[in-house]
Amino acid sequence: MAATRAPEAIDREEGCEFAPRFSADGLLTCVTVDAASGETLMVAHMNAEALERTLASGIMHYWSRSRRSLWRKGETSGQIQTVVELRVDCDQDALLARVTVGGDGGACHTGRRSCFYRRIERTGEGFALAPVAET
Amino acid sequence: MAATRAPEAIDREEGCEFAPRFSADGLLTCVTVDAASGETLMVAHMNAEALERTLASGIMHYWSRSRRSLWRKGETSGQIQTVVELRVDCDQDALLARVTVGGDGGACHTGRRSCFYRRIERTGEGFALAPVAET
Repeated sequence: MAATRAPEAIDREEGCEFAPRFSADGLLTCVTVDAASGETLMVAHMNAEALERTLASGIMHYWSRSRRSLWRKGETSGQIQTVVELRVDCDQDALLARVTVGGDGGACHTGRRSCFYRRIERTGEGFALAPVAET
Repeated sequence: MAATRAPEAIDREEGCEFAPRFSADGLLTCVTVDAASGETLMVAHMNAEALERTLASGIMHYWSRSRRSLWRKGETSGQIQTVVELRVDCDQDALLARVTVGGDGGACHTGRRSCFYRRIERTGEGFALAPVAET
């Protein structure tokens, strides 16, 4: 594939310049995982301000699309997420945040540790959800 | 938080009905991880057709936002991703795909195993990227 990649894409992919590529609506996708276990905890979004505050404070901030507001994760729940490492993907439109979780250790507003607590299963008529055992 | 959640939100979050919630532009976010190690490999998007084909075939299909086309991962590279388990998040707008990777075992078009091969580091003037050791 390398031969078809434009020079500016190669710079963005291979260079050391952090040049986040926000979507048309001004957002990056962020996958947040437990720094120790690697477990995927949640997926959320960041606008430029959320990214800036996260980098400045070392505490995860997101942009809530539903509430249309900046969201310091754990502000009300105590489930503060402290950054251990922030990674960026090849085309710099997604982040991977490796974090430690405060409070009760949960990341999901339903009280669970991870937002991904159900798996999709085939049924006779189609698909349904079934709980995943907590690790 | 439970007291402030609307009944339809609780159904979507606690029920066993798979009711994916596509964004205004018709997409779900999908985080794809190695089924054995849990390593985060990539983040991509699925439209309804990509989801349907993934569920029907057990092979990961995505929607390429840049190429505006359905994308059977690995079609040209051989890096076919076979679904081990698909999970959905609390509000059903994101998927977690646990996969095994074919071909050379990579998931990134740059040839790397994971798209998240650089971390953000603070420098004197701001932030820069540094390579992450491959696991």
